[in-house]
Amino acid sequence: MSRFTDLQKKFKFDRYTGFGSGANNQGDRLLKTDGTFNVLRTGQSFIERISPFHQLITMSWGHFILLALSLFTVLNLIFTSLYYLIGLEDLTGIVQKESTGLFIEVFSFSAQTLTTVGYGRVNPINSYASLLASLEALLGLMSFALLTGVLYGRFSRPNAKLLFSENAIISPFQEKTALMFRIANQRKNQLIECEAQVLFNYHDKETGNRRFINIDLEYAKINALSLSWTIVHPIDEKSPMFGLSINELKEMSPEVILMFKAFDDTYAQVIHTRHSYTFDEIIWGAKFVPMYKRSENGKATELELNKIGQIQRVDLPNL
Amino acid sequence: MSRFTDLQKKFKFDRYTGFGSGANNQGDRLLKTDGTFNVLRTGQSFIERISPFHQLITMSWGHFILLALSLFTVLNLIFTSLYYLIGLEDLTGIVQKESTGLFIEVFSFSAQTLTTVGYGRVNPINSYASLLASLEALLGLMSFALLTGVLYGRFSRPNAKLLFSENAIISPFQEKTALMFRIANQRKNQLIECEAQVLFNYHDKETGNRRFINIDLEYAKINALSLSWTIVHPIDEKSPMFGLSINELKEMSPEVILMFKAFDDTYAQVIHTRHSYTFDEIIWGAKFVPMYKRSENGKATELELNKIGQIQRVDLPNL
Amino acid sequence: MSRFTDLQKKFKFDRYTGFGSGANNQGDRLLKTDGTFNVLRTGQSFIERISPFHQLITMSWGHFILLALSLFTVLNLIFTSLYYLIGLEDLTGIVQKESTGLFIEVFSFSAQTLTTVGYGRVNPINSYASLLASLEALLGLMSFALLTGVLYGRFSRPNAKLLFSENAIISPFQEKTALMFRIANQRKNQLIECEAQVLFNYHDKETGNRRFINIDLEYAKINALSLSWTIVHPIDEKSPMFGLSINELKEMSPEVILMFKAFDDTYAQVIHTRHSYTFDEIIWGAKFVPMYKRSENGKATELELNKIGQIQRVDLPNL
Amino acid sequence: MSRFTDLQKKFKFDRYTGFGSGANNQGDRLLKTDGTFNVLRTGQSFIERISPFHQLITMSWGHFILLALSLFTVLNLIFTSLYYLIGLEDLTGIVQKESTGLFIEVFSFSAQTLTTVGYGRVNPINSYASLLASLEALLGLMSFALLTGVLYGRFSRPNAKLLFSENAIISPFQEKTALMFRIANQRKNQLIECEAQVLFNYHDKETGNRRFINIDLEYAKINALSLSWTIVHPIDEKSPMFGLSINELKEMSPEVILMFKAFDDTYAQVIHTRHSYTFDEIIWGAKFVPMYKRSENGKATELELNKIGQIQRVDLPNL
Repeated sequence: MSRFTDLQKKFKFDRYTGFGSGANNQGDRLLKTDGTFNVLRTGQSFIERISPFHQLITMSWGHFILLALSLFTVLNLIFTSLYYLIGLEDLTGIVQKESTGLFIEVFSFSAQTLTTVGYGRVNPINSYASLLASLEALLGLMSFALLTGVLYGRFSRPNAKLLFSENAIISPFQEKTALMFRIANQRKNQLIECEAQVLFNYHDKETGNRRFINIDLEYAKINALSLSWTIVHPIDEKSPMFGLSINELKEMSPEVILMFKAFDDTYAQVIHTRHSYTFDEIIWGAKFVPMYKRSENGKATELELNKIGQIQRVDLPNL
Repeated sequence: MSRFTDLQKKFKFDRYTGFGSGANNQGDRLLKTDGTFNVLRTGQSFIERISPFHQLITMSWGHFILLALSLFTVLNLIFTSLYYLIGLEDLTGIVQKESTGLFIEVFSFSAQTLTTVGYGRVNPINSYASLLASLEALLGLMSFALLTGVLYGRFSRPNAKLLFSENAIISPFQEKTALMFRIANQRKNQLIECEAQVLFNYHDKETGNRRFINIDLEYAKINALSLSWTIVHPIDEKSPMFGLSINELKEMSPEVILMFKAFDDTYAQVIHTRHSYTFDEIIWGAKFVPMYKRSENGKATELELNKIGQIQRVDLPNL
Repeated sequence: MSRFTDLQKKFKFDRYTGFGSGANNQGDRLLKTDGTFNVLRTGQSFIERISPFHQLITMSWGHFILLALSLFTVLNLIFTSLYYLIGLEDLTGIVQKESTGLFIEVFSFSAQTLTTVGYGRVNPINSYASLLASLEALLGLMSFALLTGVLYGRFSRPNAKLLFSENAIISPFQEKTALMFRIANQRKNQLIECEAQVLFNYHDKETGNRRFINIDLEYAKINALSLSWTIVHPIDEKSPMFGLSINELKEMSPEVILMFKAFDDTYAQVIHTRHSYTFDEIIWGAKFVPMYKRSENGKATELELNKIGQIQRVDLPNL
Repeated sequence: MSRFTDLQKKFKFDRYTGFGSGANNQGDRLLKTDGTFNVLRTGQSFIERISPFHQLITMSWGHFILLALSLFTVLNLIFTSLYYLIGLEDLTGIVQKESTGLFIEVFSFSAQTLTTVGYGRVNPINSYASLLASLEALLGLMSFALLTGVLYGRFSRPNAKLLFSENAIISPFQEKTALMFRIANQRKNQLIECEAQVLFNYHDKETGNRRFINIDLEYAKINALSLSWTIVHPIDEKSPMFGLSINELKEMSPEVILMFKAFDDTYAQVIHTRHSYTFDEIIWGAKFVPMYKRSENGKATELELNKIGQIQRVDLPNL
């Protein structure tokens, strides 16, 4: 009977993590570097797939501004065409004669209406154009109301920015060893009531499937992440990594998954974030260099955020 | 003594679910297909019944846009009438003579004021019209402020879209059988810390009432709904379905009610949703076809959402 | 030794409720009928007392609209004065000569600027008036941004509207008696994961102080408040009301305080509400009339909200 | 072996508070008076450090208004320059000849466009200026949408304002002594389900490090903070302060840290706040003067907020 069957007996397996098994073969990561799950979703129609508000508030700022400009241009082009269709004699105050200039003048009139600037030199004088302009102004207001909501949604979305050490390390710990990694808050806002949960995801040679185990932590909760937090999984009898050589670990192609939860005091909301380390990101025999010290004037604690991943090579105890 | 009296002795009954008993006779569903309760509310006056914001954010987009257009038109008609009442000589810049054209010109002036476009060709020249126009512009701004709030409310309301298997199934499970159904997240946003609670709602022949029992699940919590989740109620000694034939089950006219709760990582809010299966939606002797696999390029797990309800007929063990 | 000293020994008293003791003498209610605490706050300066956003979102709609109109008028009067101060020759397009008409024309120009309508017939032609108008338009936009936020705050504030039975009753219950009252949701939105906590607040004859006791409930949690919920405090050995005659209860001048908590599915927020019953609102010997039944078409449960407080007189068991 | 080593054996130390040890030497406070942690964050680039929304909603109102005015001026200056660059012959309706007056006229036209007032006396007549003005109006709308969101963010941010007694006191308590301090709600909104956690932070002579201990409270939760709450840490065998003389306490340079959490009923949000007392703020031998009483008309409880810190000197029991 292999060591993996042993593990299977010792731990409650798989399902309660919600990550399934079997599909995720050796070499793949469950968690992408941006903290989202490495899952390809198929079998949905286009309509089922889109989710406008979700996309509007999660897209990059560059895309968002581009989208806003494009929509503004397209809406103006549509209304410009409609004013042409109705006939430009319905608009008074037009001065341009030449066709490009005229087009831009009508386009600008439309833009002035959509934005509700309404200078009024050019303005609708007959019924159709008047009603169309009223509708355009209403549409402008509604689009702008939408824009306000979306911008607020983008801003107010609590997005914890945590710093993670580039590597997890295997470190000496209380006469044994431990798996450690270090996190800190990249922002100045206060993260309190922090909780960490760590899953050990590995390839089960025997069944060819990947397995998930919830592993124990020295501390799973802290009051506040005001400094750094070194998350420590002691490699003792209860650990799936207990007694493994570096090569045995490599064969398991492990992925250590951190699920982090805290209360963000600025937004008064609970935030969640995730991170994972694969075998290549685990360093065998190292310890973290301290990243906080007394500040020079002696009045505060100085947290050096650029040291988050700094390690020092050390020997591991012979077990 | 009937089997139902037995059940009654074995389980803590009814009241703690909040769904009452007695009123809901055989053949009725407690939970409508949209997840709301099948309850008719009477005995309230019109004023007590309405709840404007709630209705504005839960009505369909079609109704919402229609309502916005109607309100805009009605407000403009009211102000147009008021300008007529004051006398059109209070407005300068009017060009239309014919009555319909004139009406539309005044209506458009009102619309330009309400939307704060204010081209200004037509504008109030005497005191009453000036003050009325000021008031209309203020009203326009306030309506628009309302609109912004309501639109944001509509968008930001967390509305989990879960996919449920069309049927619940009775499936072989660990040498016995189990009641199973399958859920997945229709959206790309991350649902974490998911919890399921399942109620078994049935007709108690003896008392003529309907009863509710909280039934056990193999797993009631998962870390993340990144793939699909098959919710499993093992039919063992502790199950109210234990030892029932398909006909006995039918006589109980059961409704299996799922109450689902998760943390939505995009909106940073807890979301709840509900679903139920009646006897006609329970298939006796089936298992779910796997709905995720390794993706073609081998780099991710592919979740095939259209397979959510796909089953395969199987024989059940003879118990 | 009196019965009150006995109670004091049997129950953990006072402080953990946060309501203190001693100050609240016989005849006073702790909880006002709107669910706020009957506490007069003194010793704060005016500045410490005000809390603008809190007041803006909790004041009545009537007051809110009056306040908005007043502010709009005052701001316009201030800017009108400033335009007069700069000199009306800085404004072009003015047509009124007579002083009242002129004043209203300037006032309306100011209103057109503040609301950003800007018809433009009257407009600033010299530097000071131009800059003042720019500032006024900016102020208008900022006020309007504020207004939008406050309106959204007013609307989105979760405000559970519960119906409470007008009276609490002493009712027969499992061969003994129980204190009961009944609640239902006045709104159509779904209230789930409901929790009730009931405090018994009474006058302690011996010390002259008021005391608070957390009393037991038959069920303190229900899954959903889709129908009505009768909250039941069994009057057994563990109850401070055990063995009391109606006169003994009256002497204690009791106040039964309900603290209710639920998750509102429409707003995705936890809501809290409170209610209390004093001695005069407790009926000795009654039971609630059922308030839900099968609907006429037999397809749903009908909840008759106007029956929330309907009772029927019954005899209590002789204990 | 020193008393500190003893403590170390008796209590679970340090790490689970998240505040680290070692760095924070004697004489420093962990918690600044505004409730933020006394931590200096270094090693981040400028880009990593900034967090625009967080800064916009936490800066003072003075700074915020100054920033808004500056941005408005700068944006207008940029667009003014662009109109000059395009050529003022593209704008019609300009009346000023003299260079300063002309500049202000163009600047004001820009402001009228950015705020969407658009009087229209001055307005763009050629293509480049027309398009630039359209863009400026769009930018104006977007800035304003942003402003609305930020203003709402500033207002809706739940910011509990608690009053803390100026001093913590050592007071007689149940034949021994206790460390006490007193809090009250400065606002009228209801704070319910309140929880307090108190950390004792002291200098460990032996190691030269600072240590953190979670200390016991008489009551750690109360139902509602409707009056005042005296938080009591009994100094018994389980207390790190047990048996210490005033001088021994001084040598430990203690900091008593309160972490407070409550549900704010107005905003329907959980709020957190923090406060700390250093040795100089702890009074040896005192008790708090009552701060609530029956109101004069006998109808309510009067809470005198200005008495929050009033104490009376008392002798401590000889232990």
